[in-house]
Formats: sequence, structure tokens, C-alpha cells
Amino acid sequence: MTDLRVIAGLLHNANKLVVAGHEMPDGDCVGSVRALGLALSRMGKDVTIALPDPVPEIFSFLPGVDEFVIGQEAFKGQYDFMVVLDCSVPERLGPLRALLGRPMTVVNIDHHVGSREFAHYNYISPSHAATAEIIQDLIGCLEIEVTSEIATCLYTGIVTDTGSFQYENTTPETHRRAASLMEQGASSVWINLMINEQKPLINLLVLENALKSLELSSCGRVAWVSVERDMLDCLNAKDENTDGLIGYIRSIRGVEVAIFFREISSHLYKVGFRSKEIVDVNRLASLFGGGGHVRAAGCVVNGDLESLQTKIVSEALKLIEETKRDLQAQYERHSQCTETARDDLS
Amino acid sequence: MTDLRVIAGLLHNANKLVVAGHEMPDGDCVGSVRALGLALSRMGKDVTIALPDPVPEIFSFLPGVDEFVIGQEAFKGQYDFMVVLDCSVPERLGPLRALLGRPMTVVNIDHHVGSREFAHYNYISPSHAATAEIIQDLIGCLEIEVTSEIATCLYTGIVTDTGSFQYENTTPETHRRAASLMEQGASSVWINLMINEQKPLINLLVLENALKSLELSSCGRVAWVSVERDMLDCLNAKDENTDGLIGYIRSIRGVEVAIFFREISSHLYKVGFRSKEIVDVNRLASLFGGGGHVRAAGCVVNGDLESLQTKIVSEALKLIEETKRDLQAQYERHSQCTETARDDLS
Repeated sequence: MTDLRVIAGLLHNANKLVVAGHEMPDGDCVGSVRALGLALSRMGKDVTIALPDPVPEIFSFLPGVDEFVIGQEAFKGQYDFMVVLDCSVPERLGPLRALLGRPMTVVNIDHHVGSREFAHYNYISPSHAATAEIIQDLIGCLEIEVTSEIATCLYTGIVTDTGSFQYENTTPETHRRAASLMEQGASSVWINLMINEQKPLINLLVLENALKSLELSSCGRVAWVSVERDMLDCLNAKDENTDGLIGYIRSIRGVEVAIFFREISSHLYKVGFRSKEIVDVNRLASLFGGGGHVRAAGCVVNGDLESLQTKIVSEALKLIEETKRDLQAQYERHSQCTETARDDLS
Repeated sequence: MTDLRVIAGLLHNANKLVVAGHEMPDGDCVGSVRALGLALSRMGKDVTIALPDPVPEIFSFLPGVDEFVIGQEAFKGQYDFMVVLDCSVPERLGPLRALLGRPMTVVNIDHHVGSREFAHYNYISPSHAATAEIIQDLIGCLEIEVTSEIATCLYTGIVTDTGSFQYENTTPETHRRAASLMEQGASSVWINLMINEQKPLINLLVLENALKSLELSSCGRVAWVSVERDMLDCLNAKDENTDGLIGYIRSIRGVEVAIFFREISSHLYKVGFRSKEIVDVNRLASLFGGGGHVRAAGCVVNGDLESLQTKIVSEALKLIEETKRDLQAQYERHSQCTETARDDLS
């Protein structure tokens, strides 16, 4: 892994840069790319900020997001330097991946576990809650002032990737970073309002309809809902209007695994998984050719809804039992060790 | 206002203490009372922790909440000192108010704007986001170690009163306090799980049914829902199962004022108000004999639902227009001043 100070040195010597993020960009991606772009502009560099997909409407409040070039538009520029942010594998660059073949220096900065080192210089740090945290450090190394615009972008990255400081990745340092960014001009109230309080009305109508399909396993540990194409079409809703729906299902008391079936087309379903405390839903998703993280994963499956639900819910229940057995065994081993240690001491 | 160090000195000299919170206790109240109780116990004091109402189930995860004495149970003890926490007026002590008449020293610590100084010694600081922040300072003055149990209680107070660091009361200092509490043993992930991911299933069913009544004003700035007694009874739901419902309504894009009508009994409605950015809903509630805060208020009204909705929504719309005019006038005055200042300088 390349030291951030080395990367800062490389950036000082670069002239025409492109800073790029990943497909379907989230708040950390948009915020990090924009923040580094702003900092490099302040250094007098010629900077292009690029994304494979457009900025989601929810982040349109960020300063100067209209300056992003989208998809193949980025091919028009000539660059001597590329910085890829928040992108665990080069495939996530989408069409922008073609830029990697150009003769220029490429730096890759990311915080995802298992991120690949696909660039000339790589800085991958899963101990950072967000790529925005790393960009905050990098801007420190560059000795560039954090303006209120930069602070707004970085705070947005941190607050979205930590679920408002609620997820496991939030460290004491994350809070101290947020404190500094507020002092540097990030209005946390306004940012939170823009992110959490601007939901399309249609999301609530989709939620209302989806809740009609809510089912719980008899033990109450697995809950699932489904959204069919007809319903979305009838409400004139898009797939993105189901965003956040699975979170409501997971928040039910006693539920460990929440599952969301979304019909893509006839007999084809996107299945989302979330777990609360113990289950690795990445394992669950991989049983059906999907993947993801320990607490959030997904897959795409083919079949009729009822059979799919029966099959997937039954695997979820099995996994809960297995996980409980593993935890019990771990606990017993730990107790035995403690007892043996006590015997040795006595 | 009495210096916290003076209050710490008084606590050092006390022997038998009662620490009390307010009616319908929230996370800041329960957390602050429990934390100060734990700290005083570590000082070897004889401490009773008391509440007018039972601890809500959602906070049952806090360490040792079964030690709270509830309501008149607190009268059995003999005390030479009372500390009242998070209680803006003595009325909010409910039955525990009777304790104020006993011959003992009373200290009142609170963070609410407009809190009354009803005790012998008062420390009222609206610049603190939560009473838990003040207790954190007080424990510092007492030079008592913040154990992981104390940290858990204080973190809970802060995270609930700031809406996970999203409300206007969150300061950079709030984040630094959260960082310290995490280092002192508060598991933020677990606390957030307990508070936000343990919702009764019935809340979702109430939400589903309530959403059927969702209406928006033609301008989209006011949205309202209603919940009738019959529906709650039919689902076997309680009033508390509507908790958080109004938040969903406020989160709709474009909505400035969200209103929630809950039927108490035939022709009697509890009306809740939330605003997003500009409107003072305390003013709106006071038109109907209620009150509250700038962004959250409520009242109880008599009448048939449809007429009440027409009347209240129309007042909300009027208030939005008035507020916009005021802001416009303010803006123009400000521009004029700036221009005059510029003229003076030139």
C-alpha cells in the first residue's frame, strides 16, 4: 500500500487529472470525488470529475455536481493522471474502465474490505469508515484548506456510509472527523435534511403496497416482502422508489434476516438480504449465485415467486440455526479454555 | 445559574440522594438519571433513582433499569438531597413533585430552552444537546471514572436527543463527546440496534393502514394522515404503536408541515405537527390551545375529523405563506443594509 504522503507528492506533480468514482454512485462516492476535485482545483490543477452513471437526484444539493462528466463524455479529455475513488474492483468503473488503458499514472483509493489493487499506486484502508475519511487525510497531506464546500462533500460521504454514525464502521475517530468538518463549514442539519427528508411521495405509496405482502416465519426471525412489476407500473413507480424498503423490514423486533423480492421481469427476481446481529447474508446470497457483505447482500434468481420464497426463506432459517450452533460451540470452547486456564493457575 | 463545580461540591457532601426524571421519560431522561445514579453509587452514596412513569420497553436494554422506583414508590425513602434531571418545569415530575416539599437540598439540571429555575440550585444550559452531555461534564467535575455502563447511558441520552446526530442541537462538541463515550465502552452499534431496530411488528401494520389516509395540499407543502380508534382496536394496537409515524410524512419531498390526527375518543383528536425548514409549528399548535417546539408541537382538539382537517390544514398553509413573507422581508432588509454599508464604504 502506498503511503498517502507519497500519493500527495504524485498529485503535486500531476497537471491534467481525472478523478472517477463507481457505477450507481452513493453519497461516499459522489462526495469523495467532488471533494478531491475541489481540492485539486484549488491547487491550480486542470481537473475533470467523472462518473459512469449520473449523480442520483438525492445528491444534487452538493456544490457543483453539474460539473461531473458522465460515462463516455470523460473520454474527450486528455489526462496525465487518474484517481479512482471508492471502487473495490475495476469492473465497477463501468465504461470509465477504458481510461485505465491510457498511458497515465493511476491511483486507487478505497476503504472496502477485499478491494483489489488494480492501479499503479493503491491506498486501501478498511479501517476508514468511508473513502471520504481517506480524502480528508489526503487533503491534509496536500495542505489544502478545507473550504465549506469541501467539508460539505466529505461530511456527506461519511454520514451516508455510516448510516448517520450507526453502522459498525463508525469509530470514535469518525465522530472527531465529523466535528472538524462541521467547524470547517459543513451544515450537518441541512445535509441530513437533503439526504433523509426529501423522499419522493411515491416511495411511501410503494411501501404501503409492499407491506401488504409482508410475511414472517413462524419463529419471527425471518421477514420478507415482495414488489411486483404490475404494482410499480400501476403506481408509475421506478425500481429506485423501493430504496430503503428492506430497512423497514429488518427493523421489526425479533427479525434477524429481512428479504426483499423485487420482480425484474416475468419469473426473474432481484432478491435483497439484510441481517441484524449474527447472520452472514453474504453466505446466503452466494447460495443463489449472488454476494455482498455480512449484513447486506443480494442475488438475482429465476422462478415463480412462491417457490422462490419457500426455498430462500428455508435456507435463511437453516443459516440462522447453523449460526446459532456455531456461536454456541464458540462460547463453549471459550468457557473450556477459561476453565483450563483457571485450573492451571490453581 | 450555579456552576457545575459547585453542584459537584454539594453532591460530595450529600448522603442519601434521590435522582429523578420527568413523566413519559425519553432516552435522555432515563439515560441521564441512570448515569448520575451509577456515578453517585461509585462515590459510596446511598442513591435512589426515580421516575414518575415506568421505563419504556425500548430502553430496557440499559444497564440496571430494573432499579428505578416508579411513581409514589419513591416516597418510601428518606433523602437529604434531590437531583431533578431533564425536567423543564416541576409539573413534569408528575407525582414525584411532592418530593420537592420535603426538607432537603434540590438541584435541577436541564438543557431545555425556557426551562424554569424551580430548585435551590439550577443549572440550565440550552447549548448542551442533551442533559446527558451536562451529566458527562458533572461526572468529570466529580472525578468519577466513566465506566462502560455509565458511557452506555450517556451515549443513549445523546443519540436519542439528537436523532442520531441529525438535529439542529448537534454541535461539533456533541460528536467529540460521542467519541469519548465510545472509547469509554459505549457500544454505539448495539445501542443503535436496540433503539432503532426493535420496532414492534404492529407499528408497520399501523403505518400501512395510516398511509391509506395520506393527503397532500395542492401545493404539496402540507401533508397529513389520520389514525382512528377503530383501526387501532382492529389491529389490537396501542397509541404508542403510532410512534414515529409523523416522521415518515415529514420526510416526503416538498413537504414543510406534516400533521398527524390521532383519535383519542369520539370527536376528540390529538394533533401532532412537525415542520422541516422554516415554519414554527409551536405557533400553529398554540392557535388550537397546544404548544411545543419550533419543529415539533401538538394540541388536542374537539370536532369531526373532516372539519378539523380543513381548519387546521388551512391555518398551516396560511402560516407557511406568512413565514415566507417574513423571510422575504428579512432578506430585503438585509440586502438594503448591505447596500447602504457598501455605499458608506464607497
